[in-house]
Amino acid sequence: MTNWKEIDQYAKSWVREAGERIRASFATSLSIQTKSNPNDLVTNMDKETEQFFISKIKEMYPEHRILGEEGFGHDVKDTEGIIWIIDPIDGTMNFVHQQRNFAISIGIYENGTGMVGLIYDVVHDELYHAKKGEGAYMDETPLQKLDRREVSESIIGINATWVTENRRIDPAVLAPLVRSARGTRSYGSAALEFAYVASGRLDCYITMRLAPWDFAAGLILLEEVGGKATTMDGEPINTIGKNSILAARDGLHQEILETYLKKS
Amino acid sequence: MTNWKEIDQYAKSWVREAGERIRASFATSLSIQTKSNPNDLVTNMDKETEQFFISKIKEMYPEHRILGEEGFGHDVKDTEGIIWIIDPIDGTMNFVHQQRNFAISIGIYENGTGMVGLIYDVVHDELYHAKKGEGAYMDETPLQKLDRREVSESIIGINATWVTENRRIDPAVLAPLVRSARGTRSYGSAALEFAYVASGRLDCYITMRLAPWDFAAGLILLEEVGGKATTMDGEPINTIGKNSILAARDGLHQEILETYLKKS
Repeated sequence: MTNWKEIDQYAKSWVREAGERIRASFATSLSIQTKSNPNDLVTNMDKETEQFFISKIKEMYPEHRILGEEGFGHDVKDTEGIIWIIDPIDGTMNFVHQQRNFAISIGIYENGTGMVGLIYDVVHDELYHAKKGEGAYMDETPLQKLDRREVSESIIGINATWVTENRRIDPAVLAPLVRSARGTRSYGSAALEFAYVASGRLDCYITMRLAPWDFAAGLILLEEVGGKATTMDGEPINTIGKNSILAARDGLHQEILETYLKKS
Repeated sequence: MTNWKEIDQYAKSWVREAGERIRASFATSLSIQTKSNPNDLVTNMDKETEQFFISKIKEMYPEHRILGEEGFGHDVKDTEGIIWIIDPIDGTMNFVHQQRNFAISIGIYENGTGMVGLIYDVVHDELYHAKKGEGAYMDETPLQKLDRREVSESIIGINATWVTENRRIDPAVLAPLVRSARGTRSYGSAALEFAYVASGRLDCYITMRLAPWDFAAGLILLEEVGGKATTMDGEPINTIGKNSILAARDGLHQEILETYLKKS
C-alpha cells in the first residue's frame, strides 16, 4: 500500500530545499529592473528547480509519473497511478519583476484523486499544505473550514484582463461581478491565489485558462477547507488538461455561477 | 532650524512601535472569516493607532499639525509649516479580510514639500523610507533609480474596477492600457502600491481617487527614485486634497499620458 505519509514528508522537504536554492539565487540588492536578461534568469531557475524535483522523485519513486510545466517530466495523457504535477515557479512574471509573490506548487494525484497539495510562498517562507482527509494548513496553523459569504461581502481575485476585450470571455460577463463585489485583487500567481482562497484571504478566484501545474495543489487545499472549484461552466476540472477556473467558498461559488454566469 | 534627522528617527521608531501593537492584536489562528464584527476591529485599531501617533507628535512637536484619515488631527486647509499626513492602516479591507497587505503610511511635509516618507508593511516587517535628497530605502537596502520601460514590458497596478463601469472614468479609456501591458496587478493598499512602484515591483500605479494620507508618503519615496506622479490629467497633485493618481517610471508616465490618456 502506498505510504502517503512518507511521500508527503519527502515532498515537503524537497519543496523547502528548492525554495532555499531559489532564495539563494537572488542578488542581495533590489536590482530587479537592471537584470540584463530577466527571461534567462527565470528560464534557468524554472528549469533547474523542475529538474531538482524530477531527480528526487525518480530516485525515490521510480514508478511515479511527473507532469511539469517545463516539460522535463512524462508525456501524461491519462490519470492512472501516481502523478506528481509540478510548477517549479508559479508566477514567473512576479519572480522576474518582483522577486516575490511566486510559489512552488506540487499536487500529487492517485488515479485522478488529489492526495497531497503543497504551495510554498518562497520569499515569505510560508508553506500551505494539505493531505486528503486531514485538513489544510499554513505552516503549523490549521486553515478553517470556509463559511458562506455573499458577493457583496466578498473579495474576488480577478485580473483586469478578463473585464477588458480578450480572447476568452466577453468582458460584459464578469463586469457586473466586479461592480457588485466588496473589492477585487490580482496577485499574478494562480497557486498563491488558490492558497489565498483556501485561507480565506480571497473569497473567490477566477481565471480563464490554467494548466494542471497551476491548479493541481490548489484544488487539494481547497477541497480540504470545504471550498469548491469548477470550470467557469460549472463543469468538473480536467486535472491533466487546460481549464477555466472558478474557485470559491461553497455558497459563493453557486451564487456566481447562477447570477453572473447564468448556469444552474 | 528644523532637525529633520531627529524627526525622521522619531517617526521611524513610532511607526515600528505602532506596527508591533497591530501585530500583537492579531489572533494567533487564521480566523479571518469568523471575526464577529470585522468592521469594529478595524475601526478600533485604526483609531487607536492614529491616536497613538497624535499623542507622540503633540508631545514632541506641539507646533506641528496633523492630517489623519481618522480625523483626530487638525482641520488642515493650507500647507503652511510642518504637517504630518497619516494613514494609520492603509488597506483597511485587506487588514480585515487578510490580516496582511496593509501598511502604516506617514508623510511629513514642510510648506508643501515632502521631507520624510515612511511606508511600513506591518506583517512583513518591511519599512520603506525616504528623506528628501537622501534617496529611498527598503529597510537597509537602497532603492535604485528607476530606469525607463515601455508599456509592453510593464506591470501596471490597476484595479479591475477602473475598466468596468464606474463613477470616475469611462472604462474604455484604460482598457487599451490593460491590453497592451505585460500584466496587471492589484493589491488594495495605495501606500504599498506606491512602495511597489518605488521599488520597481510595479512599473505604474493608477487609481481614480485618493486622499492625502493614501499618497503622502508614497510621493516622497517616488521622488527620491526619479519616478513621476501626477493626476490622471497630468496636473500636479494637491497634497492636502483628493486626487486621481498616475504614478510611474518617468518615461512610462509620459507614454501613458500621451498615448492612452491623450494628454500632451
